[in-house]
Amino acid sequence: MKITIKSTALLVATVVVAASASLPASASYTSLQVKEIGSYYVGGKRISLTGLPDREMTYSPGSPPVKVNQNGEFVAGQMYVHYIRLEKPRADYPMLMWHGGGLTGANWESKPDRKPGWEMFFLKQGWDVYTSDAVERGRSSWARYPEIYQDAPFFRNEKEAWELFRIGKTYDPDPDKRVAQEGTQFPIESFGEFVKQSVPRWATNDELTQAAYDQYVEQACPCVIVVHSQGGNFAYKAAMKHPEKIKAMVMVEPSGSPDPEKTDFSVLKGVPMLWVWGDYTEASPFWNAIVARQEKVRAKLTALGGQADLLMLPQMGIKGNSHMLMMDKNSDQIAGLVNEWLIARGVTR
Amino acid sequence: MKITIKSTALLVATVVVAASASLPASASYTSLQVKEIGSYYVGGKRISLTGLPDREMTYSPGSPPVKVNQNGEFVAGQMYVHYIRLEKPRADYPMLMWHGGGLTGANWESKPDRKPGWEMFFLKQGWDVYTSDAVERGRSSWARYPEIYQDAPFFRNEKEAWELFRIGKTYDPDPDKRVAQEGTQFPIESFGEFVKQSVPRWATNDELTQAAYDQYVEQACPCVIVVHSQGGNFAYKAAMKHPEKIKAMVMVEPSGSPDPEKTDFSVLKGVPMLWVWGDYTEASPFWNAIVARQEKVRAKLTALGGQADLLMLPQMGIKGNSHMLMMDKNSDQIAGLVNEWLIARGVTR
Repeated sequence: MKITIKSTALLVATVVVAASASLPASASYTSLQVKEIGSYYVGGKRISLTGLPDREMTYSPGSPPVKVNQNGEFVAGQMYVHYIRLEKPRADYPMLMWHGGGLTGANWESKPDRKPGWEMFFLKQGWDVYTSDAVERGRSSWARYPEIYQDAPFFRNEKEAWELFRIGKTYDPDPDKRVAQEGTQFPIESFGEFVKQSVPRWATNDELTQAAYDQYVEQACPCVIVVHSQGGNFAYKAAMKHPEKIKAMVMVEPSGSPDPEKTDFSVLKGVPMLWVWGDYTEASPFWNAIVARQEKVRAKLTALGGQADLLMLPQMGIKGNSHMLMMDKNSDQIAGLVNEWLIARGVTR
Repeated sequence: MKITIKSTALLVATVVVAASASLPASASYTSLQVKEIGSYYVGGKRISLTGLPDREMTYSPGSPPVKVNQNGEFVAGQMYVHYIRLEKPRADYPMLMWHGGGLTGANWESKPDRKPGWEMFFLKQGWDVYTSDAVERGRSSWARYPEIYQDAPFFRNEKEAWELFRIGKTYDPDPDKRVAQEGTQFPIESFGEFVKQSVPRWATNDELTQAAYDQYVEQACPCVIVVHSQGGNFAYKAAMKHPEKIKAMVMVEPSGSPDPEKTDFSVLKGVPMLWVWGDYTEASPFWNAIVARQEKVRAKLTALGGQADLLMLPQMGIKGNSHMLMMDKNSDQIAGLVNEWLIARGVTR
């Protein structure tokens, strides 16, 4: 179904109708015709270390002990990229999915309740799908501190994941005593599985991470970027460096952006952009501030004649979504809205 | 092509002929019919931390600063599992690929020269393929030390990867001055890409790692295990705990095993086992000791009436393979031999 978007204001209603009419598209799905599944690394620089003492280790029980020289040449700042390329993609460009803070590309795969996530959804809609692990996280590895990274990492505890991600209001170590957001779509019985996806994060590596994302865009695009949370800021910067390579950008609850007061966003006015927000942001000063900042960017882009659209889900009657809306029970419904928008913006069929 | 194996001694020659006759099987490949691609976590236990001071951090530029409580509930010891399930697998069981030390499941995906690796090879041969990241590595995440893990991790330098993995004899920081093994099959021009796959490792987490592998076998098997290097010891132990669930085990340069002098391996005699070794082991005391230990296990299993087979590649005329033989230029040839053996042992067609 082809939709012509006449004005940004109309988008919300138009897309809702379109999505509900076309969501059963996945019913016609039989199996994926996959051409290639693989991975590679982008970015990274070689670093030499000297002056550290030797350590002794046994590689595995039964193998001879080895003196390990902690000095030498290492690589830091590389980023892992995983791709699934279809035999006959329906979309003209691959979709690059960038995760948020303290997580990895795994958050786009199956959901914590083991049901298919957004990766499978968009594969079924005919997209080549790329996922990646930001520098320092997951398969991208991390480097020793303070010799290479400046500082120690942060580890997210359950309470932060529960409250900051708007899964529940009041965390308690006892699952039976936790209070979930009223009407939450998050599969709270699988919260323990979700926290297994957490990886340590640093507050001092933005430059390395940005360099890897920039190189990734140079290699894998033209493309569409779907980005979540902390990834938002990296995606803005990468897109502003290579706007011609970004055919559309879907910002799923982006937590940061270049300063909306001081930044000239005009290079982005040819990039169709969509912001997607879940529920419960209004009751949170933290999230309220984040949404307000993004809305300033969106207003600036709209004033510039850009294509800056909004899916404020609760205002569309889609209630109960957490910050991790790609894991929520209605994740397919939201992905369907995103795909309809991509169709409407002419980047897929 | 069906091969009947009459004796272990005959295996080497028989398989060579079979493999060279049947390798073009992949020529008939068109595209993969994939049913589902996804991931999940196994294992892990909740841990409470107390007494650590707060830290302040900004999640991404532009978002408000947050006081981070370093205490609370965390999970440690979980393991990431990635799967690709075919619409119509030819094999009766999934193939679980377990990586070695200081690496992740990425080492089974594309090779450092970006050519398809063993994952694609076995998918094309009709296997559902599972890869995983051992506890503490990659998407399995890691936990803080010394509060949860006992000690600091080890970081592998380029020299160790070059020399220990028998890629070259003499490492030099200058790529032009490095001396590769004569006739090496490793794509040495991509050595810099290979080291990007390295992740930190601990010497103190074997128990956590084993517990996760055991749980993985309980959930994902019956299966075939293909295991590399440091993974060997974990695979022995998991298989000895659940021998009925392991339909075959392919030990690719396993670096460890339970003590061959003191261990009763009889529970494994019903599990077809294959050892695969690359080139240049004889010139290395380290690798000589490892091969000798594994050959003791194999001799014990053979004496028990087990199916304990050997692909000593250089003795079969296949020269130049490094420890990372799934990344070598002739990786498909070796995978082909492994698949022929699996056919001969009756676990696939």
